[in-house]
Amino acid sequence: TFKVAARFVATLKESDDPFAKLDSFTNRHNGSSAEGELEQMLRAVGVESLEELGNTTVPAAIQKKEDLRVGAAMTETEAIDYLKNMMSKNELNQNHIGMGYAGTNTPYVILRNLLENPAWYTQYTPYQAEVAQGRLESLLNFQTMVSDLTGLPVSSASLLDEGTAAAEAMAMCFAISRNKRAKFFVSEKCHPQTIAVVETRAKGFGIEVIVGDHATYDFSNGDTSGVLLQYPATDGSVEDFKDVIKNSHDNGTKVVLATDLLALTMLTSPGEIGADFALGNSQRLGVPMGYGGPHAAFFSTKEEYKRLMPGRIIGLSKDAQGKPALRMAMQTREQHIRRDKATSNICTAQALLANMAAMYGLYHGPEGLKKIAGRTHLMAQVFAEGAEKSALNVGSHKFFDTVKIEYPSTAEAQKVVDACAAAKINIRQMSDTVLTVSFDETHTAKDVTKLMGCFGIDGSAESFVGSVSGNGFAGTDFERKSDFMTHPIFNSFHTEHELLRYMMRLQSKDISLVHSMIPLGSCTMKLNSTSEMIPVTWPEVCMPHPFTPKEQLPGYYEMFAELEKDLADITGFYKVSLQPNSGAQGEYTGLMAIRAYHDSRGDVDRKVCLIPTSAHGTNPASAKMCGLDIVPIGCDELGNIDVAELKEKAEKYKDTLAALMITYPSTHGVFEETIKDICDTVHANGGQVYMDGANMNAQVGLTSPGHIGADVCHLNLHKTFCIPHGGGGPGMGPIGVAEQLAPFLPSHPVSPVVGASDKAMGPVSAGPYGSSAILPISFMYIKMMGSDGLKEATQYAILNANYMKKRLEGAYDILYTGNNGRVAHEFIIDIRPIKAASGITESDVAKRLQDYGFHAPTMSWPVSGTLMVEPTESESKAELDRFVDALLMIREEIRQIETGAMDRDNNMLKHAPHSPDVLVAEEWDRPYPREVGGYPAPWSKSFKFWPTVGRLDDVAGDRQLICTCPPMETYTEETA
Amino acid sequence: TFKVAARFVATLKESDDPFAKLDSFTNRHNGSSAEGELEQMLRAVGVESLEELGNTTVPAAIQKKEDLRVGAAMTETEAIDYLKNMMSKNELNQNHIGMGYAGTNTPYVILRNLLENPAWYTQYTPYQAEVAQGRLESLLNFQTMVSDLTGLPVSSASLLDEGTAAAEAMAMCFAISRNKRAKFFVSEKCHPQTIAVVETRAKGFGIEVIVGDHATYDFSNGDTSGVLLQYPATDGSVEDFKDVIKNSHDNGTKVVLATDLLALTMLTSPGEIGADFALGNSQRLGVPMGYGGPHAAFFSTKEEYKRLMPGRIIGLSKDAQGKPALRMAMQTREQHIRRDKATSNICTAQALLANMAAMYGLYHGPEGLKKIAGRTHLMAQVFAEGAEKSALNVGSHKFFDTVKIEYPSTAEAQKVVDACAAAKINIRQMSDTVLTVSFDETHTAKDVTKLMGCFGIDGSAESFVGSVSGNGFAGTDFERKSDFMTHPIFNSFHTEHELLRYMMRLQSKDISLVHSMIPLGSCTMKLNSTSEMIPVTWPEVCMPHPFTPKEQLPGYYEMFAELEKDLADITGFYKVSLQPNSGAQGEYTGLMAIRAYHDSRGDVDRKVCLIPTSAHGTNPASAKMCGLDIVPIGCDELGNIDVAELKEKAEKYKDTLAALMITYPSTHGVFEETIKDICDTVHANGGQVYMDGANMNAQVGLTSPGHIGADVCHLNLHKTFCIPHGGGGPGMGPIGVAEQLAPFLPSHPVSPVVGASDKAMGPVSAGPYGSSAILPISFMYIKMMGSDGLKEATQYAILNANYMKKRLEGAYDILYTGNNGRVAHEFIIDIRPIKAASGITESDVAKRLQDYGFHAPTMSWPVSGTLMVEPTESESKAELDRFVDALLMIREEIRQIETGAMDRDNNMLKHAPHSPDVLVAEEWDRPYPREVGGYPAPWSKSFKFWPTVGRLDDVAGDRQLICTCPPMETYTEETA
Ligand SMILES: Cc1ncc(COP(=O)(O)O)c(C=O)c1O
Ligand SMILES: Cc1ncc(COP(=O)(O)O)c(C=O)c1O
Ligand SMILES: O=C([O-])O
Repeated sequence: TFKVAARFVATLKESDDPFAKLDSFTNRHNGSSAEGELEQMLRAVGVESLEELGNTTVPAAIQKKEDLRVGAAMTETEAIDYLKNMMSKNELNQNHIGMGYAGTNTPYVILRNLLENPAWYTQYTPYQAEVAQGRLESLLNFQTMVSDLTGLPVSSASLLDEGTAAAEAMAMCFAISRNKRAKFFVSEKCHPQTIAVVETRAKGFGIEVIVGDHATYDFSNGDTSGVLLQYPATDGSVEDFKDVIKNSHDNGTKVVLATDLLALTMLTSPGEIGADFALGNSQRLGVPMGYGGPHAAFFSTKEEYKRLMPGRIIGLSKDAQGKPALRMAMQTREQHIRRDKATSNICTAQALLANMAAMYGLYHGPEGLKKIAGRTHLMAQVFAEGAEKSALNVGSHKFFDTVKIEYPSTAEAQKVVDACAAAKINIRQMSDTVLTVSFDETHTAKDVTKLMGCFGIDGSAESFVGSVSGNGFAGTDFERKSDFMTHPIFNSFHTEHELLRYMMRLQSKDISLVHSMIPLGSCTMKLNSTSEMIPVTWPEVCMPHPFTPKEQLPGYYEMFAELEKDLADITGFYKVSLQPNSGAQGEYTGLMAIRAYHDSRGDVDRKVCLIPTSAHGTNPASAKMCGLDIVPIGCDELGNIDVAELKEKAEKYKDTLAALMITYPSTHGVFEETIKDICDTVHANGGQVYMDGANMNAQVGLTSPGHIGADVCHLNLHKTFCIPHGGGGPGMGPIGVAEQLAPFLPSHPVSPVVGASDKAMGPVSAGPYGSSAILPISFMYIKMMGSDGLKEATQYAILNANYMKKRLEGAYDILYTGNNGRVAHEFIIDIRPIKAASGITESDVAKRLQDYGFHAPTMSWPVSGTLMVEPTESESKAELDRFVDALLMIREEIRQIETGAMDRDNNMLKHAPHSPDVLVAEEWDRPYPREVGGYPAPWSKSFKFWPTVGRLDDVAGDRQLICTCPPMETYTEETA
Repeated sequence: TFKVAARFVATLKESDDPFAKLDSFTNRHNGSSAEGELEQMLRAVGVESLEELGNTTVPAAIQKKEDLRVGAAMTETEAIDYLKNMMSKNELNQNHIGMGYAGTNTPYVILRNLLENPAWYTQYTPYQAEVAQGRLESLLNFQTMVSDLTGLPVSSASLLDEGTAAAEAMAMCFAISRNKRAKFFVSEKCHPQTIAVVETRAKGFGIEVIVGDHATYDFSNGDTSGVLLQYPATDGSVEDFKDVIKNSHDNGTKVVLATDLLALTMLTSPGEIGADFALGNSQRLGVPMGYGGPHAAFFSTKEEYKRLMPGRIIGLSKDAQGKPALRMAMQTREQHIRRDKATSNICTAQALLANMAAMYGLYHGPEGLKKIAGRTHLMAQVFAEGAEKSALNVGSHKFFDTVKIEYPSTAEAQKVVDACAAAKINIRQMSDTVLTVSFDETHTAKDVTKLMGCFGIDGSAESFVGSVSGNGFAGTDFERKSDFMTHPIFNSFHTEHELLRYMMRLQSKDISLVHSMIPLGSCTMKLNSTSEMIPVTWPEVCMPHPFTPKEQLPGYYEMFAELEKDLADITGFYKVSLQPNSGAQGEYTGLMAIRAYHDSRGDVDRKVCLIPTSAHGTNPASAKMCGLDIVPIGCDELGNIDVAELKEKAEKYKDTLAALMITYPSTHGVFEETIKDICDTVHANGGQVYMDGANMNAQVGLTSPGHIGADVCHLNLHKTFCIPHGGGGPGMGPIGVAEQLAPFLPSHPVSPVVGASDKAMGPVSAGPYGSSAILPISFMYIKMMGSDGLKEATQYAILNANYMKKRLEGAYDILYTGNNGRVAHEFIIDIRPIKAASGITESDVAKRLQDYGFHAPTMSWPVSGTLMVEPTESESKAELDRFVDALLMIREEIRQIETGAMDRDNNMLKHAPHSPDVLVAEEWDRPYPREVGGYPAPWSKSFKFWPTVGRLDDVAGDRQLICTCPPMETYTEETA
């Protein structure tokens, strides 16, 4: 028998219950739980047990003695059954609510081969462009589609939701006015959740939001930076914005249009009518509503504002051989660079959903989209026609998919509302006397007829077709005349085989967790298990409209409650808000709660936010957006926060201290011993402690933010709690807070959050529970791990990092360590000494790792010139060893340069990565054999992931920004 | 705008209904329906319209005027909703039926990433080994697992089901006796469906099956070729077979054990107790029961019988560079070679399900399997203990998972049966007074307790644990002492990440429809759409036990009825049987029906079966297995059946003529004009016409077997009706028959087929409706295409073939054509003239196509030295052109050899395919550049599928057969 056999015996933990089901999850999730292996690894690290490792790594002062209370682990099938029973209680009524969310048919080929495919959903943000050309191409398609439809040349690769996209636009307008124009005008005909999110966001910037009638607003004071209009409006009306736009522009006010991509296939584009920005939700392009998300917001603008755009932009560049290649453009714009100059804190966005929308666009093409729009429009027209014939008041405005009906009395409106409820149809009640109904791709003539019946309209949908005109915009200024999506990419993949193959082609160019570990420090690329993902696409999870009456969704609300309870236990906090849609949004929400708390006590001047210089860029960006004044705190030579400096500054600002933001374990991957002291100091000076929970994977079950003494903390559910990264989103950033902050947690104007207090801040996301449809992922994870499994995962995460560090430390310098020379769950490899000796940079090592089949660790963050490695608990010893071996082999390659045996500029590292076309080219003039380029590792020949391009040229890409699809020639290479 | 844009407009057919849903399927399924393209293609073929093409290609005499009557097309979402509603009527009761089928937890990671993954399910049988190393490795794992568990060194890569596997064993025993021993003994303790399938199969061979008590059977007459025993038996008992095996062997009788892989983790293996053959169902290793299938039967034997083994065997060989590489071993054993010497007609088997079972074995490893077996065993023990304590009679024999309870009276047994029914629990009622209950991985203690309650047993499952002994076999001869699955491959992938990556690694080595068209003539590799696949894994489809009382499954029975009706309409027949599990099984069933028909008329001597020499190998094999005498009919120089010879032979054998077997359009891809005449001739001479429906994709909607005059025809649902090929199965081979044959269609002894007559033949499959769980695929296809779409698909299939032929015919010789120089849906490229001129063979062209990213057409069948191309309707013009371009470029490469510009032996064709390790090697001494090897096509650089090994050495592999996992060294290559 084999040693490896012994291993599995150990991982199947003996249970007291002889009938315990055997599909337990912890041993599938945690990588190296085998007795033999575990012992080897513990020995290498110099401890006897996982317990000892925890006890000697986590500072004694903060170790938690009590077990978690999330319950015993369920097996995979048990957890699936448990959640299925819960979610089956949700009712799926016929939906006509509208308000920026619409039913859509996700083409099954996209559903299964993209949304449900780990090769797509386990990708990370395309930092390593050479092994990410697939999703980069897809995101470029998304940008092109958005640019074409909105008529604005520059688009980003997704934002979190329509509400925050509108808030981003406001911030841009303000920035364009150089923070001079402090007013932002919002049409009252915008979606209420959008208005509310904008209002929440405005507070931090000190912007005054005026909501009103855009036709009568007076722009002439010159104090209004921008105007936000909804096109079509929330009540369905499509209005002529000529005057308001002229008026705005004449007065130096920028124009933002919140819009609908499907409607734009019929309507003159925002660009054509003069808008400066367009934004909205791309959800109805094939992405399920998911009770609020996830889906991708879009954002586009004119050339002149592109460098101010929030979020990521994909651009065309070239590789080292001059071959066209894609990359994230203008990375220097990213938040971790802008820091306290930031106006936005977007990091995790909605890449996976943008890819879905793009594929939907490709599959249907412009003509297909027009047909879908036309049919949707027809249903609205037919309804309106029927209503008019029945003497209902639908007004005289143009509309696309939403019809407004005004009643003379509350009683008459209520009768219809009751009839709809009885028929299990959800509509929107705008006011006591005003109702709206929206239509979408999923509706049928039968649905329309049934709805009409509830309105007392006599006749079937079919019976009114004859009397409607077809395109209600025809012959008006609203009618779209310009082409869109004319690029061949939108006109080539209309059969299932063609689209399937295109998706598979792109997928095969990208490294994801299906290939190898992705040890990105601070990103926690752990297992995203299939059983966690399965519930996401259950109809009862992914279908509900976010403003569905709560009573219809008892399953969802049970799940929210249980998840909030478990996350509160895990974080050691009093209350949790599930609303924030990303880690950065969590930061923002937490800081706003702190501000509200100080304000509530009359402490209105507490605006100083202490932030260590090592912090993630979103920290200062969030603080800035909350209107806080950032005071940096340095680090000592060990990488720890300079406690003396902290004390000094905390005291100096004791009257104005609002908060400290701190990441724990530190962004350097170290459990700082002083953390309790730090918290005490801040509290003693009147401040609150915001803990950045990005590193929670090193805390769960061993300690907790609440236990340590923090007041608030966000959780990146897409890190510690298994939501896959999706190539750059979706994620979720719930926050936990101590009791004094709880009253200020966000609520929602349309669908109030359960338990929200009357002091609640406004919403930070468009949906009441953020991206609800992905919460089951974290829910499943917690249920399947149970209290013991969660703690064990943390121990393994720490073990794996320390084991790798041990194996590497002879060859590389490890930058910072804590107690006993121990790191937490990640560690930093310093490449600066190597660079000094050989000219080899952290980037060269990163690219060379691609030749070995690996995605590089986090590069030059938090310390430039370094690589930060985070293995997570989900990797087996075999995989950890393989990665370490690769780094050790690379170290030997570097040694050849150091000794002069290999040229400093012409070597396997500087030329990395090696795409096969380069290796197979006739010409080969390098001082190392081709095989060293392509097959550096012993395992490469049995399995090799090939980068499809050579090293990206970053400078060329930013010099000339091309962020829509390039001409076809760039897609197909001619052979020599 | 672009030409391609115009295309899609045309494909979205204008409907009369303005509300028609827009997710129509036909334009996703049919590849080139664009106006612009269609016209170009029609013009190239020389016709004006698809109608004209049909009218001028299909002989006028057999064209059908009436439309199909399967209804109008549903859209994708409509069809999903329709079937979901239907299937939701199925009830899923707690199941303890046993009888060779057991509940199992399909690990979700396998469910999603293998069973639901087109990269696995759209693979074809690994004929082109260089682009199939992934599934070959997985099937080798399956073989190794089966060999280890059964203790017999040689295993095949799956058979259709346990019943037919037993029948195969019988045929082998008979063959080993050189057809001398005409008796085959079957223990009465075998599963009843197995006994019945064996009995059906015995008829054709003229074997006498004796069913009885193996302990008392007298083997001494020397007339018994084999004995079939069940281990554990159908009533659960595990018996000591020492005596019966010794007795058999002493008398020259071979011993066959039908067994259970999970039980074998606890029981001494069949090999160890002396069995010559072991077989059974691997279903409970992670494959859902699917109301009968699909799942993979296993079959293993001793070294000495390996060359007689039915089905495919994967073996280790090496490639042109000497690198270890896998392939199908002993392909010369395949049925198309054995023809009328065949004893088996296995072609399509159950590769996908064998792969699932193998992955389940890898994921759990030997220790995991033992735990699952142990827990299952414990539940049975606990039940038995409780029963004994309650004074029920459970006998004294050993058992694994099934407990038998004997009652003194019918009334007492019936009380329990009623209690179970009331509790919604399915058990097995073996007789009026005997009940059995079986346990499996999915049961819980609660289930056991509930079941015990129905039996009047007092106490919970837990309450009896203390009084059971643990392993009931411990210390007896039954206790397994030998190791199994000790190879590292079974002990390395126990975490989800490791298994996921292993599956992805294998998948990446294999070409499937997710990469490019696979134009395998006679195999109809059309689109297997996602919407067709989705219902397969609905619980209400994949969970039911095949012997669930019908009343619990109204959804299934509605679906069967509707599918039978539609297939009868499409084939022009009176009645359809859904039971046969493959095309070859359909042939067998159809011929048996013909025999029964003749017998029923007293025509007992009608045993001559005319078969054209061009027939597929399964045709003569099936005829042989039915006990028919094969009389071959030649073809004329045009490739058509020699009608004069047919007439002569039909008349010559007019008193003994049973049937003609004929493929239509012919295996040469031609619509023979004489087909009606041929049918008439056969009928005039008392014979029946069996039509091989492999080429139905050229008939649907244009003509039909019934219309043409055939009496029976099988349908390969895995060709024309979209069941994916799964890398060599599953498939389904229902047959349609004319009225006179209908009474003889198979029924089933355990679960009678609806509408079966009292003249019904015995079952041909273990399940009453074959592999029921994949029937929804064909059902969905028919519903989504509708009458018009199905016909249009046929027209496109013919158009695509003729278009390709036109483009190729200047460069290559096209072997046979029909009317107007037209081919049907496929055509044959003759490589023999090329070989004569250049030495380049069909195999060289096939392997070179891999360098261009394509799977080769069918090689050397039906004519050796040729390639047969079948594009199907699902390919777009762009893809057809790409394939044609590859062939044309290859033709130019050959021309270089013909002109002497390139060496005859050392050239890019002889060295094809080029794996990247060869291209990247330091040494390159070939007379063409590396790039010509690796990047021959203009599209290769933007996407390239790389073969992972060089050309397979067939001879080496067969010389020394290695068909279990080789030592680890062969998995990992060291770099130079
Ligand atoms: C330390 C830290 N804080 C905050 C964030 C931002 O989280 P998100 O990307 O979810 O907005 C990150 C993201 O990686 C991080 O590493
Ligand atoms: C002409 C013909 N007949 C029969 C068969 C056998 O069908 P199956 O593989 O389903 O057993 C085939 C399989 O390819 C075939 O091409
Ligand atoms: O995504 C990060 O910026 O870490």
